Amino acid sequence: MEGDRIEEATLANPPVDEISHLALDIGGSLIKMVYFSTEREQPTDKPQKDGRLLNGRLYFLKFETSKINDCLDFISSKQLRCRGVQHYGFPASDKNIIKATGGGAFKFADLFKEKLDISLDKVEEMSSLVSGANFLLKAVPSEAFTYVNGQRNYVKIDHNDLYPYLLVNIGSGVSMIKVDGDGKYERVSGTSVGGGTFWGLGKLLTKCKSFDDLLEMSHQGNNRVIDMLVGDIYGGMDYLKIGLSSTAIASSFGKAISENKELEEYKPEDVARSLLRMISNNIGQIAYLNALRFGLKKIFFGGFFIRGHAYTMDTISVAVDFWSKGEAKAMFLRHEGFLGAVGAFMNYKLVEEFPNSNSLVGDLTDNGIIECRVHVSS
Amino acid sequence: MEGDRIEEATLANPPVDEISHLALDIGGSLIKMVYFSTEREQPTDKPQKDGRLLNGRLYFLKFETSKINDCLDFISSKQLRCRGVQHYGFPASDKNIIKATGGGAFKFADLFKEKLDISLDKVEEMSSLVSGANFLLKAVPSEAFTYVNGQRNYVKIDHNDLYPYLLVNIGSGVSMIKVDGDGKYERVSGTSVGGGTFWGLGKLLTKCKSFDDLLEMSHQGNNRVIDMLVGDIYGGMDYLKIGLSSTAIASSFGKAISENKELEEYKPEDVARSLLRMISNNIGQIAYLNALRFGLKKIFFGGFFIRGHAYTMDTISVAVDFWSKGEAKAMFLRHEGFLGAVGAFMNYKLVEEFPNSNSLVGDLTDNGIIECRVHVSS
Repeated sequence: MEGDRIEEATLANPPVDEISHLALDIGGSLIKMVYFSTEREQPTDKPQKDGRLLNGRLYFLKFETSKINDCLDFISSKQLRCRGVQHYGFPASDKNIIKATGGGAFKFADLFKEKLDISLDKVEEMSSLVSGANFLLKAVPSEAFTYVNGQRNYVKIDHNDLYPYLLVNIGSGVSMIKVDGDGKYERVSGTSVGGGTFWGLGKLLTKCKSFDDLLEMSHQGNNRVIDMLVGDIYGGMDYLKIGLSSTAIASSFGKAISENKELEEYKPEDVARSLLRMISNNIGQIAYLNALRFGLKKIFFGGFFIRGHAYTMDTISVAVDFWSKGEAKAMFLRHEGFLGAVGAFMNYKLVEEFPNSNSLVGDLTDNGIIECRVHVSS
Repeated sequence: MEGDRIEEATLANPPVDEISHLALDIGGSLIKMVYFSTEREQPTDKPQKDGRLLNGRLYFLKFETSKINDCLDFISSKQLRCRGVQHYGFPASDKNIIKATGGGAFKFADLFKEKLDISLDKVEEMSSLVSGANFLLKAVPSEAFTYVNGQRNYVKIDHNDLYPYLLVNIGSGVSMIKVDGDGKYERVSGTSVGGGTFWGLGKLLTKCKSFDDLLEMSHQGNNRVIDMLVGDIYGGMDYLKIGLSSTAIASSFGKAISENKELEEYKPEDVARSLLRMISNNIGQIAYLNALRFGLKKIFFGGFFIRGHAYTMDTISVAVDFWSKGEAKAMFLRHEGFLGAVGAFMNYKLVEEFPNSNSLVGDLTDNGIIECRVHVSS
């Protein structure tokens, strides 16, 4: 899975000594981290009129919120507290401050202060999601893609025709944000049936060890075992009058009613599959209804729920296509899980999005690392 | 519970000998039956220009679809096959025909023919729901009510201002139908997350014995044990910026992720409560979004999922009120579970809705029985 590759790559070879700024998105289930690291072997100083440009990279990392001590240990052990800041000319006042977003920026503020003597500078959650998405969509050429029939098709973003769009961030819960420009947005809807529901219900039903374990199981399962299909009600026939085929799901988990089977008698894979399909389909439908409401043709789906998982993206794409009769398009983001964290990082105002056409290298390596240059005042 | 009372009352004292016409709505989980019975002690003949009026009552009954033999036995043992038909002047051609709607009218057609020599005359499902709802709303004075703060408030239906409305029928799955008049309707949306999901998932999670058992458990439970609330993420604080209080559900079942508890360690009552709230809230939200889409202010909720259950109605009402900012109103129907069956019965075209102001006695007794007169040709 792509998400795993992001994490493994960054964990395998973190350029520790040179790590400077980092930002956190502390959600209900996961902590997402973005940090910037300069590269030692490169010349880092390029004098400009009002400061310097530093070559470097953005790295991505996640922790479970329930294991927040792992995150604190990571920061502490790597001495991430803006080590090298003075050397590279970052303002000294930033020393013990970390930009943070998500509810955990409030909930865990005291913990960070107490354990690491770090103050969390809170960045509003929706604002972070939007600025993260806007940055990624503009700066990374192959950030957005559609997913149709098992195929990723990268979408070239026209910077002059990006807005308006609907941003659907699927974290523990789901937020739906109408984005009209940089800093121009409104949270128009949301649902409590999100990634936390998949993981939470999935854990209760399948005893899965982890979110990825659950996703992997769903990949092996067959939802028709537990879902009540139109054909199950109509004796194998389509319900043509309203355009529902016999294989359409009439009632998620509906077959469990009449079968005299206990939970343990179902394959956890099948349960996971039905659950994933129910939640993905529901999110796709509510997203479409909100896109329709505001006349938005583009819907970008982000958040850690997706994890580059083929079946999830396929279900969401099909739901949007089905309900919109092909009018609206579901698009996904390579850095889906890190929109908020990237947005919080942008709040340092170090990265100039487009100082000139070359200063931000948007190449995306396979493991999700973004090469970039940051601009610091002299 | 009201639903139970309906059933018990009809089972306790069915005026067997005089039962004539009946109609069925055979859904994925439940079979709903409506039958008309004349009253022996009353004079039944009232000559009219083109026929006669019979005094009688509509009775309501349900069976589980998986126990369809109970339904067949009931029909067979009571010799319901239009006994007395000829006596009362119903056309002889109706003798072995029963009007039926729902997918089961297709699925079980052969079974009825084989076991009872009865042909099912199929009535389209959406059409039945609409004609059933229209009939009940017009004929029964206290059919519709709002549910606010634990209080039922009956709504007087203005026959000239009934349309358009959104009909949300929550069966195993959910259908949402825009109704513009008698026979004028369009199924505009639906969701697979419905009553079958509540019952099916609930059975897997709680080992409940029945749907009513599950509803009763949900009544005793506390959803905050398993749902991740806004306050759980924000350290007890509201997320005021987007208008979410600390007690709003951020992620249904989200708390199950971080707690090291197995399913068995949760109280089934709490699980049932979270499940009911998740599904009711989701249906309310999707219904609202569809009402908004077509500018509909009235939303009537029907289907057997509701069962007159206070917490279900409260959650749906609050969801519609929250999302519509008070613009749209959720209304419920006393005969919620029987819209399709009543609609199929109407298809006999025996009951003239308003032959005159007295011929249809709309008084609703507590157990749901409707007194009415039917018009038969001579």
